[in-house]
Amino acid sequence: MSEIIATYLVHDAKHNPEKKAEEIALGLTVGSWTQLQKLEQEQLKKYKGRVISAEKLHIDEHTNETVAVLKIAYPSNNFSLDLPAILTTVFGKLSLDGKIKLLDLDFSEELKTAFPGPKFGINGLRDKLGVYDRPLLMSIFKGILGRDLPFLISQLREQALGGVDFVKDDEILFENPLTPFEQRITGGREVLQQVYEETGHRTLYAVNLTGRTSQLIDKAKKAKELGADLLLFNVFAYGLDVLQELREEENVDLPIMAHPAVSGALTSSDVYGISHSLLLGKLLRYAGADLSLFPSPYGSVALEKNAALSIAKALTDQSESMNKSFPVPSAGIHPGLVPLLLQDFGLDSVINAGGGVHGHPAGAKGGGLAFRQAIDLSQKGLPLRENSQQYPELAKAIELWGVTEVAKPS
Amino acid sequence: MSEIIATYLVHDAKHNPEKKAEEIALGLTVGSWTQLQKLEQEQLKKYKGRVISAEKLHIDEHTNETVAVLKIAYPSNNFSLDLPAILTTVFGKLSLDGKIKLLDLDFSEELKTAFPGPKFGINGLRDKLGVYDRPLLMSIFKGILGRDLPFLISQLREQALGGVDFVKDDEILFENPLTPFEQRITGGREVLQQVYEETGHRTLYAVNLTGRTSQLIDKAKKAKELGADLLLFNVFAYGLDVLQELREEENVDLPIMAHPAVSGALTSSDVYGISHSLLLGKLLRYAGADLSLFPSPYGSVALEKNAALSIAKALTDQSESMNKSFPVPSAGIHPGLVPLLLQDFGLDSVINAGGGVHGHPAGAKGGGLAFRQAIDLSQKGLPLRENSQQYPELAKAIELWGVTEVAKPS
Repeated sequence: MSEIIATYLVHDAKHNPEKKAEEIALGLTVGSWTQLQKLEQEQLKKYKGRVISAEKLHIDEHTNETVAVLKIAYPSNNFSLDLPAILTTVFGKLSLDGKIKLLDLDFSEELKTAFPGPKFGINGLRDKLGVYDRPLLMSIFKGILGRDLPFLISQLREQALGGVDFVKDDEILFENPLTPFEQRITGGREVLQQVYEETGHRTLYAVNLTGRTSQLIDKAKKAKELGADLLLFNVFAYGLDVLQELREEENVDLPIMAHPAVSGALTSSDVYGISHSLLLGKLLRYAGADLSLFPSPYGSVALEKNAALSIAKALTDQSESMNKSFPVPSAGIHPGLVPLLLQDFGLDSVINAGGGVHGHPAGAKGGGLAFRQAIDLSQKGLPLRENSQQYPELAKAIELWGVTEVAKPS
Repeated sequence: MSEIIATYLVHDAKHNPEKKAEEIALGLTVGSWTQLQKLEQEQLKKYKGRVISAEKLHIDEHTNETVAVLKIAYPSNNFSLDLPAILTTVFGKLSLDGKIKLLDLDFSEELKTAFPGPKFGINGLRDKLGVYDRPLLMSIFKGILGRDLPFLISQLREQALGGVDFVKDDEILFENPLTPFEQRITGGREVLQQVYEETGHRTLYAVNLTGRTSQLIDKAKKAKELGADLLLFNVFAYGLDVLQELREEENVDLPIMAHPAVSGALTSSDVYGISHSLLLGKLLRYAGADLSLFPSPYGSVALEKNAALSIAKALTDQSESMNKSFPVPSAGIHPGLVPLLLQDFGLDSVINAGGGVHGHPAGAKGGGLAFRQAIDLSQKGLPLRENSQQYPELAKAIELWGVTEVAKPS
């Protein structure tokens, strides 16, 4: 039978996770069971939730609660094949029911077909850039609120000259009279074409898709018509299904970069909410994000390393037949971290920097170049510091921010 | 200047909430300040975030962090007037930035006009029912997954015969072949009309609006055409702006009952996420929910009492010029709690029960009657137990679940 298996972490003061699991499996499906007559049980069998396992991990020493992992299967007869119905089924009322966190969802193969996955994904984005042999590089506009279009365009030009593959809008840049959406697209396209003609390097610009929910698809179509490269989208300020509908609309046809804004409200607690890997990894990929930004494990806005790696794993897991999404570990990234980034996130990731590009003594162009140099050296297995003498931009960056060398894989 | 003031709770390991507040006010708006030239500062002044206050509360004895409340003002120049832009501005990246919880948002009067508030609200719903002098009564279908339309209709009839004002769909009932949306509406309407003709009592049915986001408005219009009474809506499985668009669509024209499914993932932690009063209170009301369900402070799925009261306060706050929304404290409610419910939530609330109606020895009809009897007695200031002898349904309920009497207000 087609079903979704939900994995939960519970802190159970009653020390009876088996009972808790049974209560969930019934309470969130048919309601009751043992009081039903035989005939009713027969009729309702295919709607009944089922406990797969209830595994005690340990006793929390501060709270004296039993910490346990529960796995419960929900038959697909119970929900329509959309994420709002699925989330409401597996973590609707349950999200309000004490110390419980949704760790994972496993969809049976038949159910997965309801989800499009990324339209472009890692391969499609590499095709757009013609870059296959290195991690991609992204930078972010800096201090753009209250600035006019020429300011934005000149910042875009500097970043592109540094050899970055993507430049993304600031996620807090909304529709505004100084740098309107459509003008950002056309102005950005023009300057990036100039840079391409001057240097042969192609940079793609992710424009922030914002506004009222029902207008997003038309706005995205307009972006496509105007020659936009990618859409940046604050998924969690809208809803996962809104992302999926953007992805599924044939005439939008642009890669979507999911920003994690607001998601920290759902993922940050160890006890409540939804796991990082599920929300920023699996569900974003299923719904169709081509790239997923999340806090890197290195910066000041840091994610615990295992959590960051688990997101990347879910985005690129080979066992899924849908396209893979690019992991974009973000925040606190400077060129000296590239060897570590490569070791942790591998070739198929995007190295993304704000301050680490703009804060370079030679400006955003210098910052971008320093990153590209660090990527080249790291991929050759050459330590950065010892080999930076012929790369003045990288040398400057290392002087400023240092370098984290890693053991060369043997 | 038009602005939003956000109030945050932080746990600051660096013991410098003033600095943290300054970092937020700049980092989430113009990015930097002191490095800017005078002329640039002049230009950017109307985009700059502003620290209103940073108040130390105490040191957390377990973590040795300074607990503080920060208030920061964001100029409305920085965002478009929609909730996704506002949430991304005040709690986008910031939600990922360590131990921080969004407690409240204060909109300047000019900004409030961008939000519709409930179309019907408490007064409009009372007008629909013609009931002005008591709290309203709601009950919930029970064990409806896998059941057919005659089963649902007969359950609806029983509940209506008990004198409830509203019956709501189970929030986990989605589009399905046994009880399709449109048939629930027409079948429900028919049986509720019968009950009205038999008894003179009018019960309204809240049908669960589900499916893909872009289809909701058409589906809601269809519901209106078919004579639906209210819509139940799992707001937090979709997005607040989706609720607002439903509210604003003129041809929908139905009261909306917001269900808190999934919201626990955002509200449950004391350290992260969004406060109950903001999410389930103020924002639902601003976006246009006519009723807001939330866990009562009495049941097993319980909310701390102050949190529950703070939601109700935000929904009914007289200082707002928009319509008031009905607070619906839910879960664990039985007739013996009515005196306490009245004391805590007052006349303008909805008393909502599932098990407390269906679990009555005389069935849902008996359960509804017991609640109505409890409401009558409580409003007269009469203690339930001593006065239940002429009310057999209430007497039975008290026998089963007990009663919580409260001190008569002097």
